[in-house]
Amino acid sequence: MDLRAYLEARRAEVESALERVLPQPPDNPAVLADAMRYSLTAGGKRLRPILCLASAEAVGGDRAMAMPAACAIELIHTYSLIHDDLPAMDDDTMRRGRPTLHVVAGEGMAILAGDGLLTEAFALMAREPRTSDAAVVARKLRVVGVVATAAGAIGMVGGQAIDLSAPATLDADGVRVMHGKKTGALIRASAVSGAVMGGGDDDAVAAIDAAAAEFGLAFQIVDDVLDVEGASAELGKTAGKDAAAGKPTYPALYGVERSRAMAAECLDRATAALERAKLADSRLLDIGRWIITRSN
Amino acid sequence: MDLRAYLEARRAEVESALERVLPQPPDNPAVLADAMRYSLTAGGKRLRPILCLASAEAVGGDRAMAMPAACAIELIHTYSLIHDDLPAMDDDTMRRGRPTLHVVAGEGMAILAGDGLLTEAFALMAREPRTSDAAVVARKLRVVGVVATAAGAIGMVGGQAIDLSAPATLDADGVRVMHGKKTGALIRASAVSGAVMGGGDDDAVAAIDAAAAEFGLAFQIVDDVLDVEGASAELGKTAGKDAAAGKPTYPALYGVERSRAMAAECLDRATAALERAKLADSRLLDIGRWIITRSN
Repeated sequence: MDLRAYLEARRAEVESALERVLPQPPDNPAVLADAMRYSLTAGGKRLRPILCLASAEAVGGDRAMAMPAACAIELIHTYSLIHDDLPAMDDDTMRRGRPTLHVVAGEGMAILAGDGLLTEAFALMAREPRTSDAAVVARKLRVVGVVATAAGAIGMVGGQAIDLSAPATLDADGVRVMHGKKTGALIRASAVSGAVMGGGDDDAVAAIDAAAAEFGLAFQIVDDVLDVEGASAELGKTAGKDAAAGKPTYPALYGVERSRAMAAECLDRATAALERAKLADSRLLDIGRWIITRSN
Repeated sequence: MDLRAYLEARRAEVESALERVLPQPPDNPAVLADAMRYSLTAGGKRLRPILCLASAEAVGGDRAMAMPAACAIELIHTYSLIHDDLPAMDDDTMRRGRPTLHVVAGEGMAILAGDGLLTEAFALMAREPRTSDAAVVARKLRVVGVVATAAGAIGMVGGQAIDLSAPATLDADGVRVMHGKKTGALIRASAVSGAVMGGGDDDAVAAIDAAAAEFGLAFQIVDDVLDVEGASAELGKTAGKDAAAGKPTYPALYGVERSRAMAAECLDRATAALERAKLADSRLLDIGRWIITRSN
């Protein structure tokens, strides 16, 4: 199977699983269920859940064991976009070619839909895969901790707080730290969760974590480059917005050419980490290449 | 120990534990850490964590085993107040006698502080109590599920969504359902979490859950009565606001006298549930009486 077919197959599995994870009416009030579904089914690359599944496969595990964590992380990613788009944050009215949730459902309901998606992520990871096997129960609890830590104050929410409060004052190191928290932490948690649920040993989990950290950095560098290059239609959001807002970007710090070279260096380091753990012969490096060569 | 001394002792334990659970700078950006701490240390009755600890004691368990869950639930309660107070929600500028977080830190940071508190709750429950004992690991995962489900779309967030979208159209049954989600679910989860972490068997957990459901209903009825009676200074928020906003309240539906009688009936049913499980000789009924007789 070539990479394109692999990604499409995994994406379809994820979409199908996401259809089943949200609580439905009447238990979940219809107005809230609709809002949560609106954002969750808006498409997107599904990079994080695919990385989670590929990490489970890379350690010889069963994808099905990792699917709940994969979906949970996509719920968390979706909530982060909803809250990030709010008027009090980035104030974005379009996302993936559609009006943002607060535009169609109101700010209050958008806040609640984000809260609901975040919370359901943890309910899902606690519930599934359903098992009383003590080893799997321990893995599930470990993954709850990994994901919560990555998504929380020392991770993604902390990165958002830096971005909200003082991005223009950051130097190159500060930018790297901010993105490491805001974007990198959840990408790493995606890979680690998959490796843990797949039954990977400590060395395998550490190697996959190191590779995913490089993927996360490459992802952000490429994101900045695409933003500057103004692929507005493909990105489905306003191009050049970050640069215009005075937020430091990799192209602004290093130029476009050097930025692209830095992304390629990330892939080299990821390759080395995976080779040391004899995990280079997996889909993970393909996913890394996809991150670097993507056009949206 | 009389009830007052018992509550004060437990409250002091909870305050002390809460001081230690939040991630600190530099891992947690100072601006976010300050915002999270501002709301978490604003006082309050600490009803939920105390109920959690008392439930662990009621089944013969160790309070220390339940303390992480107790603190996690207080983080979740605090996040819910922060988001509920936002301009897009209830638009409250005062809480517990102090300006609300969005007034002092801005809306964006208040949203993030709420997100951070919610997420850290799950990180905390996954992390502590630190153990590799398989039975305790299984209890911790169960509690993560109980709390997430209670706090999520079929629970607290769902109740908020009903309250935001259509409270004025609710009949008496609808009001009961809304409050059962918005307030009752997390109070029940507090008691159930304590009973589970304390090692209670299925019958004990079910009895404590039933009693806590009654406590939750009584709590809301008394809240409405206090709101109508205008104990503004003691509540630290604007009295009569719910009634003025056209939101249905128990006194509006049943009158003050009948409402107070209904709260007392809740305590009777809670007593019966606990007696059947031989758990009536615990602090739980004291806490129920406190809920009904409180003046703030």
